[in-house]
Amino acid sequence: MSTTETKKANVLLLGGGAVGTIAALNIETGGLGSVTAVLRSNFKVVQEEGYIIESVDHGKLKGWKPTRVVNSVPDVVKESLPPFDYIITTTKNLPDIPPSLTSLIAPAVTPGHTIIVMVQNGLNIEKPIFASFPTNIVLSGVSMIDAHEGRLGEILHEEHDTLFLGAFNNPTINDPSRELAEAKKFIEIYNAAGKSTVHLSEDVAFARWRKLVFNAVLNPLCAVLGLDDARIRLAGGGSAIEGLVRPAMREIVETARRLGHNLPEEIMDTMIHCDPMDLYLKPSMQCDFEKGNYMEYEYLVGEPLREAEKIGVPTPTLKVIYEICKALQWRIMEERGLVVVPPKRVL
Amino acid sequence: MSTTETKKANVLLLGGGAVGTIAALNIETGGLGSVTAVLRSNFKVVQEEGYIIESVDHGKLKGWKPTRVVNSVPDVVKESLPPFDYIITTTKNLPDIPPSLTSLIAPAVTPGHTIIVMVQNGLNIEKPIFASFPTNIVLSGVSMIDAHEGRLGEILHEEHDTLFLGAFNNPTINDPSRELAEAKKFIEIYNAAGKSTVHLSEDVAFARWRKLVFNAVLNPLCAVLGLDDARIRLAGGGSAIEGLVRPAMREIVETARRLGHNLPEEIMDTMIHCDPMDLYLKPSMQCDFEKGNYMEYEYLVGEPLREAEKIGVPTPTLKVIYEICKALQWRIMEERGLVVVPPKRVL
Repeated sequence: MSTTETKKANVLLLGGGAVGTIAALNIETGGLGSVTAVLRSNFKVVQEEGYIIESVDHGKLKGWKPTRVVNSVPDVVKESLPPFDYIITTTKNLPDIPPSLTSLIAPAVTPGHTIIVMVQNGLNIEKPIFASFPTNIVLSGVSMIDAHEGRLGEILHEEHDTLFLGAFNNPTINDPSRELAEAKKFIEIYNAAGKSTVHLSEDVAFARWRKLVFNAVLNPLCAVLGLDDARIRLAGGGSAIEGLVRPAMREIVETARRLGHNLPEEIMDTMIHCDPMDLYLKPSMQCDFEKGNYMEYEYLVGEPLREAEKIGVPTPTLKVIYEICKALQWRIMEERGLVVVPPKRVL
Repeated sequence: MSTTETKKANVLLLGGGAVGTIAALNIETGGLGSVTAVLRSNFKVVQEEGYIIESVDHGKLKGWKPTRVVNSVPDVVKESLPPFDYIITTTKNLPDIPPSLTSLIAPAVTPGHTIIVMVQNGLNIEKPIFASFPTNIVLSGVSMIDAHEGRLGEILHEEHDTLFLGAFNNPTINDPSRELAEAKKFIEIYNAAGKSTVHLSEDVAFARWRKLVFNAVLNPLCAVLGLDDARIRLAGGGSAIEGLVRPAMREIVETARRLGHNLPEEIMDTMIHCDPMDLYLKPSMQCDFEKGNYMEYEYLVGEPLREAEKIGVPTPTLKVIYEICKALQWRIMEERGLVVVPPKRVL
């Protein structure tokens, strides 16, 4: 690692939506890192006008930009660039929709050097990264931020940025203490501005299973039902919660327990009631689905389901939720031209 | 019964959509019955201009009307009307949405006389009718017609009218042979025009469970997924069929078997492939849901599920489909003003 007191960490950010932008803002404001942001849909507007940010932690900013804004992942070898110390990934993670995350970041990864910080949800997201970059340290970020991009380049950040940060254990490196030390070093960089609260997560799996109680259940169910996270509590006088949400959450909690992650019983009610009723908030997958965007159900529902099936925990509710998400994803794929169906008969 | 060679049967039809209109057309064309049709959404247009019908059995008709068209159920006592010999119900059957079918038809039912012919789908639909009209014979019609109302009053009827007609066994009458004789008499009236094929259904439960293989599974799943019955076969290269449709169908088939109705194993593939792929047809519940109409999931999914639970057949897939339908119905109820949610906080 080349971070010293005199040299800023060279950070590449993949995903300049709400979570990524607030991360970049923390790092740049703290002064210990400079960020190159790879943007897609909002590239043009951010490059020309910068971000408009309204943040509970950072206040109102107009025209803010990270150090560099680019519209494709730099190729450090071909472009003879200095290596990136960190790549932070905050995009949606869609293993069923090409291109893969590994192929996307590959040109920017320097083997043995670049630390990949995955601020993305779900289970087993590190596995393809380990497979493609066996000598790189991979950190795990579970974000509890409540931030949204409204219009392109306009970030609304309403809840204090809380991040659970730790290290995945890369089996080919097999040096947990070094990985943990790198997690702590990254926390210093991220927290230097004093605007965010980063918790060191020494039990990465626990943090991920905990969030899955929401993300494997309420997140897809709100999308499938077209009900925001207040209405799903109101529906049928609570029957959607008792008939669907709680049974599925119980399957997640039971699977986590059987794998050694003892989530407390109250976690289900905590997650059911985590947002105020009267805001009628839509979880991310519901927003994505309504916009015709792909849903990241494979890491949120598919992987916990497969882990449960491996160890024989019954997951009948999750299984149906998963299969429904898969069929809905196919529908989005057809709408976006990724699959084509045979022509309709003309009568 | 007052049907003789000289006197036509006095028939009240509740539900002047596609199925009801073709039924009325059969009866009037055969000459053995005269139909009073109770219409709702299409009352005005039919009263003024009659139906436009394009029927595989009856050809093209413009301006056709049954003997009488009314916009509310006649009250035979208050209006001193001759009793109805038959009431045919072809409306959607929604026990969770008021008003109930029994309260709707009550003013037209003459105890001990009127025969109620339920050409409606699902299980246990006769139970509330028996409870309200214990001395009336109730017949069961399972229609395999493929007919739709396009614009109001415009009926498109594309597949030959095939009806499985039999008698429910009303326990307070407890005279199966009389009930069967009445079913045969009604078939004569319905079939007199020679345009339809009515099968005498001596095992009403078998006919209903058979149709439930489609109606408890593909009908709601197409609605939930927004996939027509060709796309649901294409989705994920068959994964929607193998992961969702077939497991749910197996639960229905197993429940039916345990109740003594031995549906053949092939019934699942028969129902999956019952419509030609290249027509991309939408099942009725999908059409209803897309129009913002209520879905008749209680008799199609709820009752088979409850029967299965009573006898201990595991139905994990049906259970989730049922709970999802219930939540979606609540959403439609909110959209239509039947439930009101607390106001949203203004930030």
